[in-house]
Amino acid sequence: MSKQRLAVDEYVAGVRAGDRAVLGRAITLVESLRADDQARAQAVVAALLPFTGGAQRVGITGVPGVGKSTLIEALGGYLTAQGRRVAVLAVDPSSLVSGGSILGDKTRMPSLARDPRAFVRPTPSLGALGGVARHTRETLLLCEAAGYEVVLVETVGVGQSEVMVAQLVDCFVVLMLAGAGDELQGIKRGILELVDVLAITKADADPAAAARARGEYAAALHLMRARHPGWTVPVLTCSALTQDGVAGLWAAIVEHRAALERDGVFAEGRARQQVYWMWRAIEAGLLERFVGEPAVASRRAALEEAVRRGVVSPDHAAAELLGLG
Amino acid sequence: MSKQRLAVDEYVAGVRAGDRAVLGRAITLVESLRADDQARAQAVVAALLPFTGGAQRVGITGVPGVGKSTLIEALGGYLTAQGRRVAVLAVDPSSLVSGGSILGDKTRMPSLARDPRAFVRPTPSLGALGGVARHTRETLLLCEAAGYEVVLVETVGVGQSEVMVAQLVDCFVVLMLAGAGDELQGIKRGILELVDVLAITKADADPAAAARARGEYAAALHLMRARHPGWTVPVLTCSALTQDGVAGLWAAIVEHRAALERDGVFAEGRARQQVYWMWRAIEAGLLERFVGEPAVASRRAALEEAVRRGVVSPDHAAAELLGLG
Repeated sequence: MSKQRLAVDEYVAGVRAGDRAVLGRAITLVESLRADDQARAQAVVAALLPFTGGAQRVGITGVPGVGKSTLIEALGGYLTAQGRRVAVLAVDPSSLVSGGSILGDKTRMPSLARDPRAFVRPTPSLGALGGVARHTRETLLLCEAAGYEVVLVETVGVGQSEVMVAQLVDCFVVLMLAGAGDELQGIKRGILELVDVLAITKADADPAAAARARGEYAAALHLMRARHPGWTVPVLTCSALTQDGVAGLWAAIVEHRAALERDGVFAEGRARQQVYWMWRAIEAGLLERFVGEPAVASRRAALEEAVRRGVVSPDHAAAELLGLG
Repeated sequence: MSKQRLAVDEYVAGVRAGDRAVLGRAITLVESLRADDQARAQAVVAALLPFTGGAQRVGITGVPGVGKSTLIEALGGYLTAQGRRVAVLAVDPSSLVSGGSILGDKTRMPSLARDPRAFVRPTPSLGALGGVARHTRETLLLCEAAGYEVVLVETVGVGQSEVMVAQLVDCFVVLMLAGAGDELQGIKRGILELVDVLAITKADADPAAAARARGEYAAALHLMRARHPGWTVPVLTCSALTQDGVAGLWAAIVEHRAALERDGVFAEGRARQQVYWMWRAIEAGLLERFVGEPAVASRRAALEEAVRRGVVSPDHAAAELLGLG
């Protein structure tokens, strides 16, 4: 792909026409850290905004080893076989530190990567976590403007990445392993607040264990208050190898959306996500500006250490720093 | 109580001497919205800071009807009978809107309120939620400086109040009802990320149901990943009426602290909480300053509405507002 930038109009027209190469270059523009690229990216996104919102936005999380990539291949292939266009994005904050556990190339989803109805975008490997959130949000919008009807956003269970992805999507799917023997893999607690659909993967390996895990997770979830009054989180089993349960997983995602629409909360949820991201962006901007102030930067470490040691109260330190910034 | 303010020295000496009337007036000062009171309160807290940190800080949450007040009376009475000094604070964000579900007087804890070793402080009835967090934090420090060895911070399961209280305390106790018949009360999902000890209340009413609920919650928690590797959340039953399980609840709180100290993470946890509050205070201060800017205030509603309707992207709106503030 050429490093040459296109004009705003060319990005807009190419994305609208579903041109994969232009879409890829538009995403690269969105991810660029250069100020002039950022300005151009903002213009492209603004021009495409009226053509966004049409996709089913699905988040998929699970620890490394749970089989996310193969399940996404299976689900994506199931959907493209029905004629749907599917985009796959990845959010992997661990890539910022270690190179990541979601591979940065397309070899892990070989059949989707070759599928003309699918668009697989590797995780961006540069930038801070706040930036990753914004890039993913804008990339999702670009994919919608390009006519993708399903956008799958994949993430690993690291830090705040699930919270972020859950605020980007309509339905949040958590993948779990049945575990070996009676040793069940623990659910990360914070995830339970976010899950809309829970699926036990690799059910082919030990169907009895998968069924048992399904029962136990269903019982545990039954003890939790519902996130939406009109929706009980279904616990499913599936196998990317045999394709068993893949259609059922998609049906659950579709049914979840139907339930929210029946209750009249679907559109409101998306509107609230938009406002959420506006205020997160404002907070991030204010904080960035603040810590960049030379007077704040030179005093910050000493005050933080005094607060850690309990010598200065948090509010006292905050007031002093706010007076400098 | 006189409305007359004391001098900083008088507050400091009185609190240090464990004078309940002065402690009460110092808390009133901390809660005051007047700028001159705030400055004096900061000076009092700063002077007392070296004498803080000595208490076992315990958060207690549960929905209205779970029996929080009676259990806190039972637990507090158990501790004061052993010669310990106990302070009880309440955080009730619902009081800001509706008058609250935690009563603003001391009649709901009649025996603790009369107990010379106990100090019961009703929830502040004025101020914004961010302010309540700061007041509670500083009130906790004042109680420690006054020699209270246990501080119980009570909250209802409303909004973000549990997250806030969990960041104030060493051990977070969640109270649940066994429920009528086989109808179990659901756990608010976000709570699971915070809970250190879970207790089924009113076990005397139906011991079999309480035992069954205990087993089910223990099984569900077993499926969650541990918050601290060295600590498995115990699920207990208790009764404020018969006092059964009250000693066991306290033992679990003490054991939790011992486990964190064994793992060398107790002091680190407190240090991290301090820094957490410093940055929350900075963020709140920056945001307050920002939304107070006339240019921001006059543009904000229109932009937020455009973002809600999907006409302007969150980042575009954020950038425009940041340019004004």
